[in-house]
Amino acid sequence: MADKVLIYSRFPKTMTARFAERFELLDTGGKPAHEVFPAEELGGIRAMLAQGGSPLGADAMDLFPKLGTIVCYGTGYDGVDLKAAAARNITVGHSPGANAASVADIAMTLMLATTRRILVADQYVRSGDWAASKQSPLMRAQAGMPSRRIGVYGMGEIGRKIAARCAAFESEVGYFSRTRYDLPYQYFPSLEALADWCSVLMIAVRAGAETQNIVNADILRRLGADGYVVNISRGSVIDEKALVAALSDKTIAGAGLDVFEMEPHAPDALTALPNVVLAPHIGGHTLDSHVAMQNCVLANLTAFFAGKPLPYAVKSA
Amino acid sequence: MADKVLIYSRFPKTMTARFAERFELLDTGGKPAHEVFPAEELGGIRAMLAQGGSPLGADAMDLFPKLGTIVCYGTGYDGVDLKAAAARNITVGHSPGANAASVADIAMTLMLATTRRILVADQYVRSGDWAASKQSPLMRAQAGMPSRRIGVYGMGEIGRKIAARCAAFESEVGYFSRTRYDLPYQYFPSLEALADWCSVLMIAVRAGAETQNIVNADILRRLGADGYVVNISRGSVIDEKALVAALSDKTIAGAGLDVFEMEPHAPDALTALPNVVLAPHIGGHTLDSHVAMQNCVLANLTAFFAGKPLPYAVKSA
Repeated sequence: MADKVLIYSRFPKTMTARFAERFELLDTGGKPAHEVFPAEELGGIRAMLAQGGSPLGADAMDLFPKLGTIVCYGTGYDGVDLKAAAARNITVGHSPGANAASVADIAMTLMLATTRRILVADQYVRSGDWAASKQSPLMRAQAGMPSRRIGVYGMGEIGRKIAARCAAFESEVGYFSRTRYDLPYQYFPSLEALADWCSVLMIAVRAGAETQNIVNADILRRLGADGYVVNISRGSVIDEKALVAALSDKTIAGAGLDVFEMEPHAPDALTALPNVVLAPHIGGHTLDSHVAMQNCVLANLTAFFAGKPLPYAVKSA
Repeated sequence: MADKVLIYSRFPKTMTARFAERFELLDTGGKPAHEVFPAEELGGIRAMLAQGGSPLGADAMDLFPKLGTIVCYGTGYDGVDLKAAAARNITVGHSPGANAASVADIAMTLMLATTRRILVADQYVRSGDWAASKQSPLMRAQAGMPSRRIGVYGMGEIGRKIAARCAAFESEVGYFSRTRYDLPYQYFPSLEALADWCSVLMIAVRAGAETQNIVNADILRRLGADGYVVNISRGSVIDEKALVAALSDKTIAGAGLDVFEMEPHAPDALTALPNVVLAPHIGGHTLDSHVAMQNCVLANLTAFFAGKPLPYAVKSA
């Protein structure tokens, strides 16, 4: 009989098809597990698959007395209470780096789409305004990439790929992260210093308690009226209310966002703005990236059921 | 008295402000010059500023018997009949390379926006479909950049910058141009061979009679159902009817277009499509690029009125 895996978060069937070939999947469809499956079935659950952002605290873990591993699909695991997991001997796995190129590419897409006003441009053509030679203040020329300073916040695999791409666009690149690396980019000792220097802030830092709302009204003010912010990390890193205010009163010029505080909800105040480009958390959503992430999930689950350590374990867990 | 320059094409005042400081500008606003200015005034015109795409044939030149130079704003000069100009001892100037980074960047913007479906994504968030977990066939995962083959058609300054940027995205890069260069990209001996190989065709070739409609139904068919085409050169390079057909019947997956056959008009059949991203010829439209192009224009006009050769002359003219 195949080993059972609880699908704890909502996943499209296309994303779990390869797991179904190897395991018996108990798919909650994202609903509370005890509403979907009888208690005796859940009592035997040893492994679960989750979205890294799904809240998984001590209480949730205690509903599964035999739980031995939480495997996250993707790089993030910010929803998982790592201390609670460790206290229960629950290992936590993820897919490190598997989606780094895909996420870095959505960061670049959002930055270019925002700074070159591509939504406005497309609408200008489709509406007939171009043909009618109508003026559009939003179509005014902006700075080009060679005169922009790109500040990368966080220098993990995604941050490095963003930096390398920006350098190819002839932009100046700087970064701030807890650790200073031997990299050909200017290092800034604080997020404040980076924000003062850069014209586009690319948020690629790992989300967690210490980065909660760290990009606040003060940081946004430092970017200035020609400044942009792009977030492909987690919604929690930005103070979303402060961002809406800064975008509305032109404290900054625009934003490109793949992540939001309360996904899948983006606040109305944000979706009403013309100077933002919004994406439904599709950073890791490419075919290559899904295959790479699924490979990590399969390797983690297979190792777990064979009684071996997870090959892609969360390090601090 | 300041030297007179006829503004032959339609230019926003912001783009000609620096020229007005040095020359007396006769601005046609894009209308036929003889409808705006008296014949005796036009009879003395020695220099004109034009958009490279504005039709300027022998007949048009003969309206200005003293014309000595046509200075194009930007890289292109495809509207100018170079043989007719040479026969009349009219020199032709342009701004080579001045907008190369800006145009390469719009090519990247259009490629990423199209392949990552950013217009659809933004609408998916703004409409509330994401919050409602609605399915969207257009939001299905696509190939990521590391698994794409980018075919660059034309290896001038813009083509090189596109290729360098794509390489930073971990894509395979190939190219076709009349000349084979010592470059770290695979060379293909024909446009057909490039189209067979690549999944994204980036058109960066100089427009002219020999490239008229060269990207036709056959080339598009070779790109295949997962293929994309991005055009930042001139609308004339693509057979626009064949492109609309290929996009409508899914012969190719999508297109990103900054240029069109009959600007500023984009055909209704194109603006109705969901799998295209359209821009109103804004490739060179960044602040840095405008300054660089204006520097070339000023240098060309100043040299001309001083009786010196144009520093940025069209070579074959």
